[in-house]
Amino acid sequence: MKTIPLILMGCGGVGRQLLQHIVSCRSLHSQQGLNLKVVGVCDSQSVVASADFLNKGLDDSFLLELCRVKLGGSSLSKLGDFGECQVFAHPESQGKILDIAAQLGKSTGLVFVDCSASSDTITVLKQVVDKGCCIVLANKKPLTSKMEDFNKLFTYPRRIRHESTVGAGLPVIASLNRIISSGDPVQRIVGSLSGTLGYVMSEVEDGKPLSQVVRAAKSLGYTEPDPRDDLGGMDVARKALILARILGRQINLDNIQIESLYAEEMGPNVMTVEDFLNHGILLLDKDIQARVEKASSNGNVLRYVCVIEGSRCEVGIQELPKNSALGRLRGSDNVVKLLLSPPSSCKWQLEIYTRCYSDQPLVIQGAGAGNDTTAAGVLADIVDIQDLFP
Amino acid sequence: MKTIPLILMGCGGVGRQLLQHIVSCRSLHSQQGLNLKVVGVCDSQSVVASADFLNKGLDDSFLLELCRVKLGGSSLSKLGDFGECQVFAHPESQGKILDIAAQLGKSTGLVFVDCSASSDTITVLKQVVDKGCCIVLANKKPLTSKMEDFNKLFTYPRRIRHESTVGAGLPVIASLNRIISSGDPVQRIVGSLSGTLGYVMSEVEDGKPLSQVVRAAKSLGYTEPDPRDDLGGMDVARKALILARILGRQINLDNIQIESLYAEEMGPNVMTVEDFLNHGILLLDKDIQARVEKASSNGNVLRYVCVIEGSRCEVGIQELPKNSALGRLRGSDNVVKLLLSPPSSCKWQLEIYTRCYSDQPLVIQGAGAGNDTTAAGVLADIVDIQDLFP
Repeated sequence: MKTIPLILMGCGGVGRQLLQHIVSCRSLHSQQGLNLKVVGVCDSQSVVASADFLNKGLDDSFLLELCRVKLGGSSLSKLGDFGECQVFAHPESQGKILDIAAQLGKSTGLVFVDCSASSDTITVLKQVVDKGCCIVLANKKPLTSKMEDFNKLFTYPRRIRHESTVGAGLPVIASLNRIISSGDPVQRIVGSLSGTLGYVMSEVEDGKPLSQVVRAAKSLGYTEPDPRDDLGGMDVARKALILARILGRQINLDNIQIESLYAEEMGPNVMTVEDFLNHGILLLDKDIQARVEKASSNGNVLRYVCVIEGSRCEVGIQELPKNSALGRLRGSDNVVKLLLSPPSSCKWQLEIYTRCYSDQPLVIQGAGAGNDTTAAGVLADIVDIQDLFP
Repeated sequence: MKTIPLILMGCGGVGRQLLQHIVSCRSLHSQQGLNLKVVGVCDSQSVVASADFLNKGLDDSFLLELCRVKLGGSSLSKLGDFGECQVFAHPESQGKILDIAAQLGKSTGLVFVDCSASSDTITVLKQVVDKGCCIVLANKKPLTSKMEDFNKLFTYPRRIRHESTVGAGLPVIASLNRIISSGDPVQRIVGSLSGTLGYVMSEVEDGKPLSQVVRAAKSLGYTEPDPRDDLGGMDVARKALILARILGRQINLDNIQIESLYAEEMGPNVMTVEDFLNHGILLLDKDIQARVEKASSNGNVLRYVCVIEGSRCEVGIQELPKNSALGRLRGSDNVVKLLLSPPSSCKWQLEIYTRCYSDQPLVIQGAGAGNDTTAAGVLADIVDIQDLFP
């Protein structure tokens, strides 16, 4: 039986789902000769660690209790010290994590699993790289900050996995890494990397005003609390940056040309969400409608995509043939289903053009968001690095 | 620098392409800290091995010369003994391979790469499993013979990779393994797994007689020399069997319901290829045309697919909605391109339905055949097992 000790950072929706997956996969993993041992869990303030982390992980009933506490909105510090675990609050917590990393990293191995959405984890992640630890990320931030942070985290490229940073559990990073290691040069990547923007663009294609579509999307829970977080394109740009950096481009977020669907004077520093939804966005309807009609008169449709090709890395609206794979991609095939489904069911598609896939790209399509599939991607990453453990 | 010693079995199109990829990726792999050391190459009769295989592989100029000799149709035995290599003919050859496996398997590790299309490799592969060797397959036969052979080869599941047995380099097996290890239950797999049959079905959909389509496909080099090898569905069935077995089904080829496009009385034992193409196949035109028309009147199209669901594992013609992903899949988007392209450009598509991908499946689409992409998939597999090597 091979043991993989891990520390989970972040117990929001994805982190909690991961813990539940780990618990429910116990017998499956045991059949595969694997034991995932959760030795610590962190939220933004505290860390809960197994008192005897060299020999034992936190037990499953405790992990599920922890999920309940976090779901209820409480801090980990509320768990208090049990016999088998200890709680460390800030600023002690960071020292404790590094202590565990130092003790486990080089001997049995240790995985840091970052399911947070914070930039605050970067400092710790960079430190544990040198302690022999592995890193598995769902969090995009550590890979989209400074280039030197990215390079530091990739000091040992076999010891970092990050499938769920782009397209949740969709096998995008795994596939791209296979292509790269086989020496098949990637010529172009084109993708619709946001379920929310995919939905918005296919709805405006049907003639609905942008303002109405965005308000509906927000009320369906399809958007971030401030829909400008989706409409600004920054989330797509982060995904594009990760893809470009994997391809070897030494670039930063500000090297990416990002088209925002709203004007600067409607930004969060200028108007409230309510003002934006009730007034600002109305001013955008006419222009987007005109663009939709112009595209349509060319037999094309508008899609919000990322394009990576040569030194070009852009995210924004592109006019694409109605009959192309991306042109045919709709927010959902079925409106009724869409109304009943979480935003994760919005389709996501990536096309990779290489020497082997030149005329017809390698296409990966599916649900590219959602806690369940994101956590599944993280879990597959953890299982995939098992050969690095003794 | 990590060294991965390997023995290549089979130097037909895929094997030769693999050797060329290995040679041309030298600097890429070296940047990744990897050295792929080819210690032996086998064809059906002979093995050429590095004389000092414990320390040195065959050198690159020799490997390229070997490719030229094989491309010219000669046997490996024609290479003769050079200073740094030795040639062993049958029946000595098998003993030599096992000798290398015994010496390298447990110490530095050794990969057996099977790019042949033969059942003859199974005996050796089963033996080297116990000697600590890894296995990478493009050859479907070892995984589609008896269930006990499959189980033997999977004694150490982390030591076997076989991406290119299903859909060439398309990341099908890697993706399926990720889904399985994350505990996401696979509910259904539906795929169009044959570029040739994909082409044939979309051409008959356009109203062309089957006989004419098959004759044209043969003259374009899209089919096997005897097109019945494609039309019989056995190749698709082998792929379906591999997928089903990965999902844990303990079944054999004869548990798969296979629909052949030609009648038994037109089989290879009854009539020649010429007779089949000039007479036999004409008798099939009417029936297939009637089925196409019936499907069309229901708004559907016919596709030759594999379906794996519950205990069901079938390959054959299915009536699918014109607007479904598989219904929209065409042999090629562009007839002119198709005429200029190798059969590998015929599209291939797999849909995987799981808990995470329920309403909208995970879709993988692209060229699912061709020596270049098949060899690229094999190479990615080899690189992917590097963590098993010291």
